[in-house]
Amino acid sequence: MENEQIKKITDKIKKFRGDRDWDKFHNPKNEAIDLIVEAGELLEYFQWRNGKELDEYIKAHKQEVSDELADVFYCVLQLADTLKIDLEKAFDSKMKQNKKKYPIDKAKGKPTKHNQL
Amino acid sequence: MENEQIKKITDKIKKFRGDRDWDKFHNPKNEAIDLIVEAGELLEYFQWRNGKELDEYIKAHKQEVSDELADVFYCVLQLADTLKIDLEKAFDSKMKQNKKKYPIDKAKGKPTKHNQL
Amino acid sequence: MENEQIKKITDKIKKFRGDRDWDKFHNPKNEAIDLIVEAGELLEYFQWRNGKELDEYIKAHKQEVSDELADVFYCVLQLADTLKIDLEKAFDSKMKQNKKKYPIDKAKGKPTKHNQL
Amino acid sequence: MENEQIKKITDKIKKFRGDRDWDKFHNPKNEAIDLIVEAGELLEYFQWRNGKELDEYIKAHKQEVSDELADVFYCVLQLADTLKIDLEKAFDSKMKQNKKKYPIDKAKGKPTKHNQL
Repeated sequence: MENEQIKKITDKIKKFRGDRDWDKFHNPKNEAIDLIVEAGELLEYFQWRNGKELDEYIKAHKQEVSDELADVFYCVLQLADTLKIDLEKAFDSKMKQNKKKYPIDKAKGKPTKHNQL
Repeated sequence: MENEQIKKITDKIKKFRGDRDWDKFHNPKNEAIDLIVEAGELLEYFQWRNGKELDEYIKAHKQEVSDELADVFYCVLQLADTLKIDLEKAFDSKMKQNKKKYPIDKAKGKPTKHNQL
Repeated sequence: MENEQIKKITDKIKKFRGDRDWDKFHNPKNEAIDLIVEAGELLEYFQWRNGKELDEYIKAHKQEVSDELADVFYCVLQLADTLKIDLEKAFDSKMKQNKKKYPIDKAKGKPTKHNQL
Repeated sequence: MENEQIKKITDKIKKFRGDRDWDKFHNPKNEAIDLIVEAGELLEYFQWRNGKELDEYIKAHKQEVSDELADVFYCVLQLADTLKIDLEKAFDSKMKQNKKKYPIDKAKGKPTKHNQL
């Protein structure tokens, strides 16, 4: 079978959690909190620098940034699993909406929110 | 080839963005901001309710929650692509660290941070 | 003069920053990032526990939680100062809107967003 | 008495909430979530622009940004009240720590985290 990558990674998460008997702490609310807490830890690396200086800082901290992004990715897959959401289907469904909200001819080259287009 | 699911989804993101000539607004800093902004929109659904009442609310708003989670997923894949991070490798590398930080015999059944174990 | 409390605290922030020659790193974007990063660090204390267990955990970590809340408060005052926003006026103006969005007779006892009332 | 500004604003929050019988939805966890959700809404205004273009965008949306900052300020005061934290004391206590963590001679002119100084 193809396209099993997300499922395979999700299974690793569930095994890690199950091995530690952590399922009892988990519910969608706590997992959604976890997600934003991790997103904050990731964002911290981008906080005080800009431009070339930021690029160099990120390059020098590639492993830490990669670890933080992995944590966020973990949280997304975990929450999807808990809520029984198929991530790829959810993605495709959202992209259909995005294409309607941001038609190429109107949105091209503009950082404008759809409701202001 | 197997395990191309994340790459395939990432390619859709890049095409969507490229079609709209949005690449010029993108840099890792803005994408990391985007990620936490979307995580906040997702969290909003879990904000004021708990327990059974929350479950029912989430069930009734399954599509909206799924859309928000898709947005976060989009941001994660986008940032990984921009930073040239292979998400599955980053995940596996982080999980190795997690297993060391949270050894089963010490972490079992406890919501304790690794530095307090 | 009365009601100078927020100004007084803001002046301490500006002196702290000025003494360290940090003004060059500051702009509203970085300060708005700082604010959410600190809000994430605060939220971390509320993450995995609920009810009585959470109350006890927060009580046992009162100083740390207080420190994190102080960091968020710092960021709010700093951003207000940078954007030349009078916080008390901004608050009063927003409360007027809130009272219209959530009229007592409609909103009483309901955790419903104003656009769903 | 002087320095009653924060208390006065906090009392307005409590009256607003009490009038709507919303106290039952409130607990520190939900309030800490509220805080980060509002911080995300604020950050959204700073997301895709930089430099002069951002300055102009913020200027053109001064009222909205001011409203969002007021929401965050509301959440900070509310959480402080719920946790019985005196914000000014918490601030002063944290600043004492900051001064130790970031001594002027070491921190001057550097965006470096204290543990890397």
